[in-house]
Amino acid sequence: MNDEPAGRLAEIGEQGIIEIVARAARDIGDDCAVLDLGAGDQRLLVSTDLLLERVHFRSRFMPARKLGWKSLAVNLSDIAAMGGRAQAALLAFGLRADLDAGWVREFMDGLAACARRHGVDLVGGDTVRSDRDLAICLTVLGLAREDELLRRRGARPGDLIYLGRPTGDSAAGLALLESESERSEDLDPEARSQLIAAHLEPAPQLELGRLLAERHLASAAIDVSDGLLQDLGHLCSQSGVGAELEADGLPVSEAARRLAEALGTQALDWALSGGEEYCLLFCCPEPREAEMLAACEAQLDLRPIPAGRIVEGSGLRVRVGGSWIIPSRFGYSHF
Amino acid sequence: MNDEPAGRLAEIGEQGIIEIVARAARDIGDDCAVLDLGAGDQRLLVSTDLLLERVHFRSRFMPARKLGWKSLAVNLSDIAAMGGRAQAALLAFGLRADLDAGWVREFMDGLAACARRHGVDLVGGDTVRSDRDLAICLTVLGLAREDELLRRRGARPGDLIYLGRPTGDSAAGLALLESESERSEDLDPEARSQLIAAHLEPAPQLELGRLLAERHLASAAIDVSDGLLQDLGHLCSQSGVGAELEADGLPVSEAARRLAEALGTQALDWALSGGEEYCLLFCCPEPREAEMLAACEAQLDLRPIPAGRIVEGSGLRVRVGGSWIIPSRFGYSHF
Repeated sequence: MNDEPAGRLAEIGEQGIIEIVARAARDIGDDCAVLDLGAGDQRLLVSTDLLLERVHFRSRFMPARKLGWKSLAVNLSDIAAMGGRAQAALLAFGLRADLDAGWVREFMDGLAACARRHGVDLVGGDTVRSDRDLAICLTVLGLAREDELLRRRGARPGDLIYLGRPTGDSAAGLALLESESERSEDLDPEARSQLIAAHLEPAPQLELGRLLAERHLASAAIDVSDGLLQDLGHLCSQSGVGAELEADGLPVSEAARRLAEALGTQALDWALSGGEEYCLLFCCPEPREAEMLAACEAQLDLRPIPAGRIVEGSGLRVRVGGSWIIPSRFGYSHF
Repeated sequence: MNDEPAGRLAEIGEQGIIEIVARAARDIGDDCAVLDLGAGDQRLLVSTDLLLERVHFRSRFMPARKLGWKSLAVNLSDIAAMGGRAQAALLAFGLRADLDAGWVREFMDGLAACARRHGVDLVGGDTVRSDRDLAICLTVLGLAREDELLRRRGARPGDLIYLGRPTGDSAAGLALLESESERSEDLDPEARSQLIAAHLEPAPQLELGRLLAERHLASAAIDVSDGLLQDLGHLCSQSGVGAELEADGLPVSEAARRLAEALGTQALDWALSGGEEYCLLFCCPEPREAEMLAACEAQLDLRPIPAGRIVEGSGLRVRVGGSWIIPSRFGYSHF
C-alpha cells in the first residue's frame, strides 16, 4: 500500500510537500538543524530561509534597506527560538538584471545593519542573475550547548504559555501598507510608524532566547512566523500535547486596534493568525514562572505576555469572549 | 570621490555586483566561507548556491532526479575545492504549485542519492511556494583543519597547474541536449550517455580534495564551475600571480571531439570555456609533483591532467597550436 501524498502541490498542501521533502531528511522538527561537529557539548545551529519576490514580499511595499534587514532578521529568529548565539550568515542572492546598483547597495546596508545589531558576521554567499523575480536565501549559523537547546518538543501538560511580546502589529502593518493610499488619514504618524516597523523591521528575540536557554526557564519554544495559532499548533504536535489559549487576555496595541476599527476588521484576528511576528512563543513550567518573569524584567526589561496553558491531549482551544472555541482558521499556509 | 559601481546590474556586470555585495561581507575570496567556532584547529566550511529555473537549468533538459543530484553535487564541489570533509546539507526549495508530487519525490531521491554517495546528511531546510520558477538553494557544511585548508590564494610562480580530470564533456553534454532532436544520430549511445552524464550528474572530487589537503600536496585550488580559463583567472588573481596554460596538451574526450565535428565547432572551446565541470583545478609545487601523482594513482586510481604552470605577474597566456595567445573570451558570466 502506498500512503505517500500524490497530486499537484496545490492540492497536497504545504504539509504534504514538507512530508515528501522530510522523508529524505533527518530531523526537520525544529526551527534550526542541530549538528554535533565533535566539539564537546557545543552544537551548531543552522537555519536557511528562502524569500521570493511576489510570494513573500512586494518591492512596492518593501524599501530595499528594510528588505535587507528583514531577510536576515527572520532567519535570526530561528536561532532565537532554539536559544542559540547567532554567529554568521551567508546570502544567496538572485538579482534581476534591471535592478539598480543603488538598490543592491541599500539592501546590503540594511542587512549589514541587522548583522551588526545582533553581532553576526556576513561571511559569504552566492550572487546570480534571476530571470524575473528576486530570490533571497539567507543561511544563519549559531551555537548553543546541547543541554541548553530550546526545542518545540519539550512542552508538558501544566506548562504556562508565554509570548515574548504582543502579536498583531506585523499583520496590522501589512494591512496598513496594502490599504495605504485610501487609509492614510486614519492613524497618527507615530501609530503608523509602529505598525509598519513591526512588519518591515521585525526584531528577532535573541536575548530572550539566550536567557531562557542559559537558565533553563523554558520547556519548549518556537518563533511566531506563521501566526500564533498555527505556531502554537506546531509546538503542541511536536510535544504531543494540547493547549488552551486565553485570547481574551492577549494585549492588542492601541495602534492596531484603531486601524482595525478604521478597516472594519478585528485586531484580535491579527494577533491570533497574523504571520511574520518573529516574537518567541515559549512554555514555562509553572514552578519556574516567578523566576522567569523576574529574570526577563531584571536582565532584559521585558514582561512576557501570559497566553494560556499546555494541557493533555492534542489540539487547541481558544477562549474568546468568555467562551472556549476550537479554531478552524489558522495562520499562513505557503501553498 | 565615489568609486562605487553605479547603474543597472546588466551594465555593471557580475564583478561589479559581487563588489557591492562583498563590501558588506567578510572574506568572499574562496569557494566556501571558513569559520572558527572555537573548537581548536577545526574549521567549519560553509557554501551556499542558488539555482534558478531558466537561468541555471531548464526542466525540459533536466529530469527531476538528476536535478536533485546536481543541486547538491555542485555545492559539494565547493567543499572539495577547499579540501574539506562534507558533513551536512540544507535545502531551501521554492516550488511551483503546479508541480506534481512525483516530480518532488524524484528530485528528493536524486538529492538523497548524491548525499549518500558522499556521506552527507540532509539535515533541514525550508519549503516555500514559488510564483513561476523553481528556486533551489543548497547550503553545505564541511570540516577541515586550519593547516590543511586549500585556498585560491596560495599559488606561487613555478607551481604546476593540474586538473582533477579532463574538462569539456559537461559543455559538450549541454550542447548535445540543446541540439538533441536534430543530432541524435551523430553519436553512439555510449558516447551520448557519457556527455549527458557529465552535464547532468557531475561528480564532485571530494576524495581528491581531501588527499591534496591531508598531505599538503597543493598550494592552491578551485573547482571549475565557470570554465577553466575563468576559474584559473580567479585563482591567479587571488594568488597575485599569472599562468601559462598548455591548451595543446589538454585531453579532449573522443565523444566530445566527435560531437564537436558533427556540430561544426571546436571541442577545445568546451574544454577551455565550458562551465559546470566541477572537477578540481589545483597547483602543485614542483618538488611535490611526483609524490602527488603517486598518491593520486595509489589511493584514488586517478591521473591528474597537467595543464601548465604558474608564472610571475598577472593574467593568462594560453598555448594553442604552438603559439601563445592572450585569451579574450572567458567562461560563463552570470549577468
